[in-house]
Parts: sequence; structure tokens; C-alpha cells
Amino acid sequence: MIEPRTLPGFMELLPGDQILFNKIKDTIRKNYERYGFLPLDTPVLESSEVLLAKAGGETEKQIYQFKKGDSDLCMRFDLTVPLAKYVAENFNELSFPFARYQIDKVYRGERPQKGRFREFYQCDIDVIGRDSLSLYYDAEIPSIMYNVFKELNIGDFTIFVSNRKILLGLIEELELKDIATDIFRLIDKIEKIGENNFVLALKDDYKVDEQKIQKLLEFVKIKGSVDEQIGLLKNMPIQNANFRAGIDELEVVTKYMKTFGVTEENFEINLSIARGLDYYTGTVYETFIKGKENIGSICSGGRFDNLAGFYTKEHLPGVGMSIGLTRLFYQLKENNILANESQSVAKVVILPMSDECIEKSIELSNKLRENEINTTIYLENTKFKTKLAFAVKSNANYAIFMGEDEIKNSVYTIKDLIKQEQQTVTLDELLTILKEK
Amino acid sequence: MIEPRTLPGFMELLPGDQILFNKIKDTIRKNYERYGFLPLDTPVLESSEVLLAKAGGETEKQIYQFKKGDSDLCMRFDLTVPLAKYVAENFNELSFPFARYQIDKVYRGERPQKGRFREFYQCDIDVIGRDSLSLYYDAEIPSIMYNVFKELNIGDFTIFVSNRKILLGLIEELELKDIATDIFRLIDKIEKIGENNFVLALKDDYKVDEQKIQKLLEFVKIKGSVDEQIGLLKNMPIQNANFRAGIDELEVVTKYMKTFGVTEENFEINLSIARGLDYYTGTVYETFIKGKENIGSICSGGRFDNLAGFYTKEHLPGVGMSIGLTRLFYQLKENNILANESQSVAKVVILPMSDECIEKSIELSNKLRENEINTTIYLENTKFKTKLAFAVKSNANYAIFMGEDEIKNSVYTIKDLIKQEQQTVTLDELLTILKEK
Repeated sequence: MIEPRTLPGFMELLPGDQILFNKIKDTIRKNYERYGFLPLDTPVLESSEVLLAKAGGETEKQIYQFKKGDSDLCMRFDLTVPLAKYVAENFNELSFPFARYQIDKVYRGERPQKGRFREFYQCDIDVIGRDSLSLYYDAEIPSIMYNVFKELNIGDFTIFVSNRKILLGLIEELELKDIATDIFRLIDKIEKIGENNFVLALKDDYKVDEQKIQKLLEFVKIKGSVDEQIGLLKNMPIQNANFRAGIDELEVVTKYMKTFGVTEENFEINLSIARGLDYYTGTVYETFIKGKENIGSICSGGRFDNLAGFYTKEHLPGVGMSIGLTRLFYQLKENNILANESQSVAKVVILPMSDECIEKSIELSNKLRENEINTTIYLENTKFKTKLAFAVKSNANYAIFMGEDEIKNSVYTIKDLIKQEQQTVTLDELLTILKEK
Repeated sequence: MIEPRTLPGFMELLPGDQILFNKIKDTIRKNYERYGFLPLDTPVLESSEVLLAKAGGETEKQIYQFKKGDSDLCMRFDLTVPLAKYVAENFNELSFPFARYQIDKVYRGERPQKGRFREFYQCDIDVIGRDSLSLYYDAEIPSIMYNVFKELNIGDFTIFVSNRKILLGLIEELELKDIATDIFRLIDKIEKIGENNFVLALKDDYKVDEQKIQKLLEFVKIKGSVDEQIGLLKNMPIQNANFRAGIDELEVVTKYMKTFGVTEENFEINLSIARGLDYYTGTVYETFIKGKENIGSICSGGRFDNLAGFYTKEHLPGVGMSIGLTRLFYQLKENNILANESQSVAKVVILPMSDECIEKSIELSNKLRENEINTTIYLENTKFKTKLAFAVKSNANYAIFMGEDEIKNSVYTIKDLIKQEQQTVTLDELLTILKEK
């Protein structure tokens, strides 16, 4: 006998949690489609040559790569590289701006630890332009996420927005361009390592002037409302072109985020968002749950200059964000943020009281399903207690007891399993009860 | 530059087809949930030791197996083995009968050829009993599939039902039990190899009496309505226990399929369905599209005696069926069976006539989305012709032109892109039009 076990780092849920997980996934999808985004479903496996065109460093080490026959294969480690491949491959068939979503599993052979997964869902939205892409899309993308999180009811959250050009412009102004990537990375880590270590690293490892370090530090610590920060930035005596362009872009993006309906309670400018990856070239986003910042960003992304340079000469700028759903679900559960309501697929469980009642019970189940009511019918010949326990454990709202008396009199005994109330009703009344809400 | 290509044997669809594929997938899921089946989402990767506990022969050769660090891993090749592992692993947490569905991708490194896929969706439903499972579930399972195919509108189809015990009983009666598995396999292939080769194989390879071969042949060729065939079988002078039990079971299953609403046009007894796999022990099913039998069975399954003998001492009988969705979709397209209607996510595309109209256009998009209307807003600054072409290519029903005149007068110009009719209306009228159907 083999011990049945699931690999570490792989999330496998019990039915109740799975139903909840799927509800969240469905809500995300519904919102993505509400904005007209097109679905994609790319393969889990790709040729290593294609998938690793751009990868390198830490990511490459984590990739599940293997040979099967003559093929050198990889499991996808994100949904962006497959998107790049897809757009390059199908360029002539697609309509631009190409707005697509993909909600799918990706694979990274990380060392498993609490809250880290080797198989996890990413829920990506991206808009890809042909040659150019209007800045308004940089406002639409976070607005979609705003609607997702509002509907998921996960409590207060803040979408932080910045523009990498501003920080890059400042770095250029301070004549620190040679170490720009390192500075971005340090700023990304500033919360984790603390201000002192940030200063020490720049001073000792990179020999940066104390005055310049202070300027950087002051800059990333700027606080205030969107308008205040934009006003403050505009008045800074820095003429660097990137700095100015970044401010102009950020002003447009934040203005139109409001037009798209994002309330000021739920978004902020945060100039310390650097998003270490060189991939991002303009607007950048991160999202935190208020009071649960320790969870980390639950939804991030940004503007990129060129999606698929490794596959095509076409110039494909874009903007996107992604929710790491598996990790988010784990954290929401761990932090008791999810409403702990019981989850069920079926609204009602029909319990035939004896084998003689099966036929009429099935006929009733047909009728309920025709009325779009999700219905389980219990078909085992067991004691009443066992039958009722099954209905209760299923978390359905109602149980219907189909006994010989009920059948003879064409009535239905229905029990509200939450309120613990039982009544005997006609078919019409039964349908009215079950169609409520 | 790397050529962007998708591996052979992997289906990757353009957005229009992907929307259609997802609609089919959603319909299947909706029907599974209508019957109260619980969702599962097991990992794509499992430990090889666990996944290969039972595999062997052809299947094992096709499995994507590889090592990562110390782990010997496999990609799942079906959804049944992961179900077995899941039920054994979570036995004490589950409620029985455990009715679950899983709609997910599986992996087989077959030689790629037309209509064969290395990555494909299976849409499984199974009910698992603890120690025993009532025969009524053998009637419910094909009824669910009946509803799926009715709603998918794929034309006339027939669910064929049989019971392996009947054929087994006959084989025992003919004293051919030693070669029972071979006979089952030959009967499964009879359509493909033809009657003559069936007879020859039994005569030459297995030295079976001509008289016995004729009895087998007569048996699998029995035709007639459900009642006729049941009547005929009952009157056969064979007292073998398996034979009799199989008939009794088949009678119950077909009777209750009718109770569950399956019309006689859509199901038949077919005693030649043997389902070579020893896995099945009672009821067996196959489903064919009338006139397109060459496609093969589009949905198969059956009753099994014990799901997880390799993982647990618990006795877990069950019954299930599965749709091979990727292959089915491919065949439906190839055979022009799918309604060729244009597919879109968005019902309407808003086209701002100039950048000055963007703000009001976004406000309208908010309003439409609040009314649960999937809406795309086109945000590029291009010529009118380009904007309209985008709306047309998106396959949305409607385009709304937001020009300065419209904004000044608080009216909306909406074009029905199918009927090619344009009108200017108030917001209320606009919402009425867009909420239709």
C-alpha cells in the first residue's frame, strides 16, 4: 500500500474551502470580463528554448525543466512569458489594444515554506498596444483591481501608485545613474531592512555622498494626498526630463483612476514603490490590506515598454497587474479575513424517506433543477439520522424530507437547516422558498 | 530572436475560439453543480510513487515524469488517480456518498497527430460510496451528461449503456472465463476490426468453438428498445449469477435514467460496450453523436468496485463519467457541429470621438458596468475608422459613439453592429437596449 500524500508546497483544499476559493476566482474573472478583457488559456508546458528566452538568475533555478524524448520542456513559471509568446505568434490575428486576462496555475520549485507555494494561481490582466498604448489604460487597470477587491470584501485596502521615471529622474539628477538598478532594489527593500541599513548600504557599499542619500531618503518618504504629492513634486527644482515626464504621467493616471471610480480612500501615491525589475518602465502598482501590510503586496504590476522583444521586432508596450491568488487565499484564511460562512454547492438536499419514495424524489429533483436550483438527492438506503447528518454536513440551506405521507398528499416537508425551522408546503410554496435570494 | 511557437499536441486558441471553449466548459460546470457535485482542484504534479501506484503498460510510457532536486515527479495523466489519492488522504473529512467534479488539464506524451492532444481537459464526475453505493447513482450520472449535451446543443446524441456483468456471465457460461479479458478487448474493437476478424481471432488465436463464437456474436448484436432488450435478456436460458445480476442492475439503471428525465431518443442498451479496462465492474457507458460515430465516444465511464485500493484499506465503490473536452471541442469544430456565431466578452464598445470625450466616456463605462453590462472602452487616440474597426472585430453587439455633441446634449449614439442600425437615445433608453436578452 502506498501512502496517499500531496507534495509539499502544493495547495489541495477540502471541498468547503475549494468552493470558497472558486467563488473568489469567479469574482475575479467576472470583473475582468466586465471590462471586456479576453480570456487566454495557454499550455502549462512550453519548449525550454521559448520559455527561457528571457529568464535568468533566481527564476531559472526554480523552473521545472525536463526532457521527454527529444523535447526539452519547461512548466511555465508565470503568465507573462506565455503572453509574450502568444502575442508574437498570433500578432496578425489579434486586435490592438489587446486586452487579455488569464487565471491559471504557474510553477516554481521554491523551497517550500509557510505561505509559499510551488504551484499557484496567477490572475493576470494586461493591455498590449501596437507601437504605442495610451496612458488611460494605466488608470483602467488598477480600477479593475479596485472593483475586484471591493467585491471580495476583504476589508480596507490601498492601491499604491508611482512612476519609475520620477525616481529614475532623481537618480540621474543626483548623478547616480550607474547604480540606478541597485538603488531601485534597495528602495524596494527599505521597509524590510530599515532606514539605517539603507543609508549604510549606500554609504559603505556604493560610496554615495551623505547629502545625496538624504535627498533619496526624503524623496521616498514624501507623504500626503494625491494632489498634495503631485503639487509637491511639480514644485521641486529638478528639470530632468524623466523626472518631469514621470510626474506628468502620474498626474494623468491618478486623475483618471478617480474618473474610473476609484475612491481616494483606496489609493495613494507612494514614491518608494520601485518594483526592482527592470521590466517596468513607467507606472507601477502595489496593493496592501490596511493593518495587514505584513502579508505583502496582494496585487502588483506596472507599465512595460516592450512585451515580446525576444520573439518579435514588433514594438509592444503594455500595462498590467496580477493577483497571486493561491498565496492571497492562504493569507486571507490565516488572518481570518475571509467571511467564515459555510460553503455549499447545493442549495437543498432531498432526502427520500424510503426506497419507495425514490421515484417521486427524483421527479422533484428534476423540477428543482429545471428551476435553476442546485439540488443534491441522497440515494443511499440508510437511517434517517444518517440522511439528515449528510444534509447538514453538506452546508446546504435546506433539506426536503420525502416520505410516503408527503407523496400521498402532494406536499413537501422542508427544513431550513440554518434557522432550524420545518414546514410542510405545496410545490409552488416550495419553489418560492428555494428561489429566494 | 527566438521563434515564438507552441509545442505540437498542445491546443492554444485564438480569443474567439477561447470564448466559445470557455462557454462549453462553463455549461459543463454549471450542470455538474446543478446536481450538487463538489469541486476539486488537485495539483498537476504528484509524487511519482503516488501517481504510478497503479499505472503500467502504455499509460506509464506516456507519462511526463522527471526529477527536481530529490523529488521524483509526475504530471497527472488523468483525474481518477488524483481523486483516489484525495479520497484516501482526506477520508475522515469527507461526507459519503462523496460526489465531486473536476474540470482540469491532464498530460500524456502521446505521438501528436490530428485530434490527439498531449495536454487536454477532462471533465469528470464521480460519486464515491463508503463500503457500498446505491445503484440509483448509476442512473443519475448519465442523466447529468444528458443535460450537459442537451444544453450544449451539439445535435442528436445517444448514451449507450450496458453492464459488464452480463457479458462476463455469458463468458462464464460458455466456459471461456480464462480468456475473459481478451474477449472483452476484442468486443471493444469489433466495430474497428469487423466481424470476420473478430471470429478469426477467437478461432485461431484462442481456439474457441465456432458455436460459442456465434453465441458471443449474436449476443453483442442484440438490438431493440430498452424494454425489448431487457425482456429478451430475461428470457435467455442462462442461470449464471453474474448474468442475472447484470440484467437486474441494467433494468434498474435504465428505468431510473428515465425517471431522471433522459428521453428514450437519447439512450440505448448496447451490449457490445465492454470497456476493456478491468477497472469497470458493472454499469458502463459510452456516448456518440448520431451520424458522427467516427468521432468516437465523447463521454464514457462506468461503475467501479474500489477506487483507492492502492492507498487505503477502506472499500470505496463508485460510478463516474468523463468528457474529454479538448478533443471534443476539436472534433465539434472540425465537423462544423458548433454553432458558428461570433463570440465576444463585451456586449458593447464605447468609442470616445476625441480625447476631450474620454472623461464622459469613462463615466458611461462605469454606469454600464454597474448595470452588469460587459463593456470595453477604447482609449487610443486614432482615426474614427480605426476605432470602429476595433469595435466590429471585437464581435460586440453594439458600439457607442461619444462625441462632443452627444455629451453637450446628454444623449448617446448607439450602433447595432449586427443589424447595422444606428440611433441616438437617452441614458434610460440606452440601458434598456443593452440589458435586453
